[in-house]
Amino acid sequence: MIVVMKPEATQDQIEHVRDHISALGLQPQVIVGQHQTVIAAIGEERPGLVETLEPAPGVEKVLPIMAPYKRASSELKKERTVVRARSLEIGGKAIGVIAGPCSVESEEQIVSLAIKLKALGATGLRGGAYKPRTSPYSFQGHKVEGLKMLATARAETGLAIVTEVMAPEHVPVVAEYADVLQIGARNMQNYQLLTAVGDSGKPAFLKRGMSATMDEFLLAAEYILDRGNDQVILCERGVRTFEEHTRFTLPLASVPYLQAKSHLPVVVDPSHGTGKAPLVPPMARAAIAAGADGLMVEVHDDPEHAMSDGAQTITPEAFARMMAECRRVAEAVDRTF
Amino acid sequence: MIVVMKPEATQDQIEHVRDHISALGLQPQVIVGQHQTVIAAIGEERPGLVETLEPAPGVEKVLPIMAPYKRASSELKKERTVVRARSLEIGGKAIGVIAGPCSVESEEQIVSLAIKLKALGATGLRGGAYKPRTSPYSFQGHKVEGLKMLATARAETGLAIVTEVMAPEHVPVVAEYADVLQIGARNMQNYQLLTAVGDSGKPAFLKRGMSATMDEFLLAAEYILDRGNDQVILCERGVRTFEEHTRFTLPLASVPYLQAKSHLPVVVDPSHGTGKAPLVPPMARAAIAAGADGLMVEVHDDPEHAMSDGAQTITPEAFARMMAECRRVAEAVDRTF
Amino acid sequence: MIVVMKPEATQDQIEHVRDHISALGLQPQVIVGQHQTVIAAIGEERPGLVETLEPAPGVEKVLPIMAPYKRASSELKKERTVVRARSLEIGGKAIGVIAGPCSVESEEQIVSLAIKLKALGATGLRGGAYKPRTSPYSFQGHKVEGLKMLATARAETGLAIVTEVMAPEHVPVVAEYADVLQIGARNMQNYQLLTAVGDSGKPAFLKRGMSATMDEFLLAAEYILDRGNDQVILCERGVRTFEEHTRFTLPLASVPYLQAKSHLPVVVDPSHGTGKAPLVPPMARAAIAAGADGLMVEVHDDPEHAMSDGAQTITPEAFARMMAECRRVAEAVDRTF
Amino acid sequence: MIVVMKPEATQDQIEHVRDHISALGLQPQVIVGQHQTVIAAIGEERPGLVETLEPAPGVEKVLPIMAPYKRASSELKKERTVVRARSLEIGGKAIGVIAGPCSVESEEQIVSLAIKLKALGATGLRGGAYKPRTSPYSFQGHKVEGLKMLATARAETGLAIVTEVMAPEHVPVVAEYADVLQIGARNMQNYQLLTAVGDSGKPAFLKRGMSATMDEFLLAAEYILDRGNDQVILCERGVRTFEEHTRFTLPLASVPYLQAKSHLPVVVDPSHGTGKAPLVPPMARAAIAAGADGLMVEVHDDPEHAMSDGAQTITPEAFARMMAECRRVAEAVDRTF
Repeated sequence: MIVVMKPEATQDQIEHVRDHISALGLQPQVIVGQHQTVIAAIGEERPGLVETLEPAPGVEKVLPIMAPYKRASSELKKERTVVRARSLEIGGKAIGVIAGPCSVESEEQIVSLAIKLKALGATGLRGGAYKPRTSPYSFQGHKVEGLKMLATARAETGLAIVTEVMAPEHVPVVAEYADVLQIGARNMQNYQLLTAVGDSGKPAFLKRGMSATMDEFLLAAEYILDRGNDQVILCERGVRTFEEHTRFTLPLASVPYLQAKSHLPVVVDPSHGTGKAPLVPPMARAAIAAGADGLMVEVHDDPEHAMSDGAQTITPEAFARMMAECRRVAEAVDRTF
Repeated sequence: MIVVMKPEATQDQIEHVRDHISALGLQPQVIVGQHQTVIAAIGEERPGLVETLEPAPGVEKVLPIMAPYKRASSELKKERTVVRARSLEIGGKAIGVIAGPCSVESEEQIVSLAIKLKALGATGLRGGAYKPRTSPYSFQGHKVEGLKMLATARAETGLAIVTEVMAPEHVPVVAEYADVLQIGARNMQNYQLLTAVGDSGKPAFLKRGMSATMDEFLLAAEYILDRGNDQVILCERGVRTFEEHTRFTLPLASVPYLQAKSHLPVVVDPSHGTGKAPLVPPMARAAIAAGADGLMVEVHDDPEHAMSDGAQTITPEAFARMMAECRRVAEAVDRTF
Repeated sequence: MIVVMKPEATQDQIEHVRDHISALGLQPQVIVGQHQTVIAAIGEERPGLVETLEPAPGVEKVLPIMAPYKRASSELKKERTVVRARSLEIGGKAIGVIAGPCSVESEEQIVSLAIKLKALGATGLRGGAYKPRTSPYSFQGHKVEGLKMLATARAETGLAIVTEVMAPEHVPVVAEYADVLQIGARNMQNYQLLTAVGDSGKPAFLKRGMSATMDEFLLAAEYILDRGNDQVILCERGVRTFEEHTRFTLPLASVPYLQAKSHLPVVVDPSHGTGKAPLVPPMARAAIAAGADGLMVEVHDDPEHAMSDGAQTITPEAFARMMAECRRVAEAVDRTF
Repeated sequence: MIVVMKPEATQDQIEHVRDHISALGLQPQVIVGQHQTVIAAIGEERPGLVETLEPAPGVEKVLPIMAPYKRASSELKKERTVVRARSLEIGGKAIGVIAGPCSVESEEQIVSLAIKLKALGATGLRGGAYKPRTSPYSFQGHKVEGLKMLATARAETGLAIVTEVMAPEHVPVVAEYADVLQIGARNMQNYQLLTAVGDSGKPAFLKRGMSATMDEFLLAAEYILDRGNDQVILCERGVRTFEEHTRFTLPLASVPYLQAKSHLPVVVDPSHGTGKAPLVPPMARAAIAAGADGLMVEVHDDPEHAMSDGAQTITPEAFARMMAECRRVAEAVDRTF
């Protein structure tokens, strides 16, 4: 941690900060510059330390040095994590593809779609049973009945089930039916939920919050890892910016960045990341070229009559073409599909 | 709802959309323009309708007309809502001021501070017992013990307690001790929590999510209102942008905007909205001049040793000066203080 | 400047950076931390130095310490700058108000409007003669004829003329007629234009770019100051964010921030900052309460028939009410009006 | 254009808007909805029309229907534009690669680097002679001498020269030496410059402004096209968002979006788009997979001693590896390289 003093800081103020650093169990080192003094604090940089130094008189700013996450860091664990759940493997050489409808609508729908998706190469099945909706008047999902429909689709296809859990009290029931517990973007900083998913022992699929920084994203993963659960998949699903031609802005540079900073696998969701069906296949290809370990894609037999997210959902026919294209790109970057 | 067809849309596609609108129980009206056709759908514009029309072939975009919220709307309820809880009144002519530390640290701290704040004109006491923290390694709050300390401070001062509730299962215990249940920015779209707070019957203090639009903010309030609880205070606390000289960007135009669109009172939090103690008093003044119904401000006797948020916390002395300044501004806009 | 080495940096890499710093004429100081080494570079931190150190092997990041601007800094010049041009004074105790139409439309329009605005308390007259327009098909301004109309309005009222100059080659003619040269938000980093305005010797009115940081804004001012022209007014006019209920997001915390970092006066433009006429008066009041040294407001006799920016333009009647309100707020913050 | 009236709009206000639309030469069509009335305006939707209707009493909002650009639109011109300049061809099946240093530093540097880049497959040479710099104290480029050095490099290699022009008055001299005139992100809305480049008859390389929407970007191209110059290359170079781990956020969904809306070719600049050398190759691969027609990449023999942009500049060795990777991805999407 580096404390930058204001140019007009007094000697007393500098000594006060130096003593404060010592009191925190760190070793202060004062560097007198031409215009201003900076004080380095040597030792373990615990979260929250920055906060205690910023209000001190004469302090201009405090610059943290170390990454605030530990267990998610590639410094702590050099080998890459591979998350496995039945048919699904994310983080190895093979690229995992989780596909399915936004919402589970009926048993017939999810089973027949799962059979098609499996045949086209999907390795996981998505489908919302508990749906977080912006409006209280929108369809909120079939809940437990939806979970049972997903389990039937799994029984028919062997596909691992990835489905969202919205509240700590739902973790047991969702964990009973699902193979991977998804934490949605709106819940990325729902710490009770992160902790409950960590405790469940089930693999977690953690979506980036729509305005989360990389540090915040990895710290959310840290909440799960800190419960002894190291099966965490990170999912880039787009961030909120001024852009209006897409629903969100999908920043793929986060893929190689996260892979450098963390050992956790990284999946991209081009459906939410663009919000527009015609942009899903090119962004799926781009995600693989950027090095993504997997894709999550919304597919529906009849997007026009889907109960949610129709505009960003592709048909099985478009999914088939997308898979063929992605297979070629995967080979070009030495991945299998 | 207006459906804009692509310039190259065929007559079949136009008829398909027209029929789809009829099937939804709305009345379609086709307008043939010089370059493209648009189809107006007349009737109740339910949430989710837009989604079903966007994927139809030949559709360029769908433009909603009506606001998606109902109970929060100033169209439905013309008179302004006043939220009352003991000493606190927000939404009337008097401006409410909720002040206190980021975290409740000890009984002594919160009681002595509450006495000072009351003497300086605060009408509510804030203080975190359950703390949502970005890092699992940061101080997470004293939980139930913190709630008891707040209750003691209330017993000493009569100040209404405003404190955050982070999970649905905590609502009963927080509601037992607190007068107003705060929903934090990170939980603005935690729908289980919104519903539980709605059901509690306690007044709610709803913070804007850091990248929430106005419609999303009012729809989050709608979740609470929809449970029959109409005591909701909206709080603007800043949004995430590219700006880096402040912790968040505090957009005060949301104050008059929300007051025009909704009957709910609007409070501003200049502490989180700027993240810098020296910017808190000028933005508190500005909030009042913009018409805010109240302020929420972080105050601590010794910000340098506060357990959280020190950099944005002001001292009781600075709070006293801020209150004197704000009183004058309030009078200038015909509000009392 | 602080160079943070990667945890895995080798001794050779550390020495390489140390030598590089010495070669730049700075004094390196190596601090060996528990997890990683940081190297402080003591001496004059010239722009561009950071860039030369970031690509060196083993370097994680480089943290600048000093502000990159000099002449705009309040460290260099302690007393606040007051910009004066005829009737206009910005930066003293009195708040300056520059009002007028978006575009100068006709001599009759601008003269009659100027007379009204003067009577209502405006101290400067705005009006576009050269108009930067997003579309090549929009009205581009009356150019020199517009300047002459402004000069006539000045002859009638004595109001100082503030008008935009869009290109270096127009500086001489605009400087011939105008009292203050406005540089628009889109041109904030048009360095040829900044230099030409600096060389003109005329006071400059510099609008913040719609995605400019504070450092970039003050460095744009630095281009003007560096030509020996110290008559620069900074104007906050809103930034581009995800918010869609306003045309831009108007962040008033920039007012006290800029006033702390710089000696230059700060004006707020609530017309562009909101894009909505009903939000202009509350944000004008808020700007003054936040400490702004002046306002720039778009006023037109008939906004519905204005040649540009109608939606954000207020009528003289609304301006009269706004001025009365602002006068009271100004008094509440010990400013005159 | 659709005018949405407020729910409380009076019959007089509705008739006023209807008459206003007629007066504009458009045909109004009134649609009486359940909650509010909307009025469609049929006819040519000229820029600026929206502005005249928004301030009318009783109007809630005005929704434009048509794209505001014409000549850049794929509706007007169905076949895709191919821009050709000597060795460079952008927009056909082959992907163009423009590589070179941020700044031209010396003749020896640019010539020797150009020879290497040509051998590695580059089809165009970049290099700044006129440099727009955030700080007046940074290196501003070798100007005309830099142009001459670029011409020498072209004479040695045959590579087309792409270099930035910063001001209208520099267009003649830059056009004398360069093959393609680059307009930088900061100048995307410098309309005098766009017009001058349009008039030059030289191919233009137009970078997206760092907070420009797609409509604004295509309207900037429209300024060039409107001068009869149809040789325009669009370049996505990243946008400004809250993300801080990269210099800008690089949103590749703009590539397929622009290609659908416009006939102009689209190039991606992963150097500015990320600001970090290690992220350049993965994002170059992703850009090609997303369908980009070309790349612009900063390469320097010794990034550590580059006069600008070192942190985002790759070495010729890294460029060689990147080219080999990109060639494979290009083949996977049926493009040549």
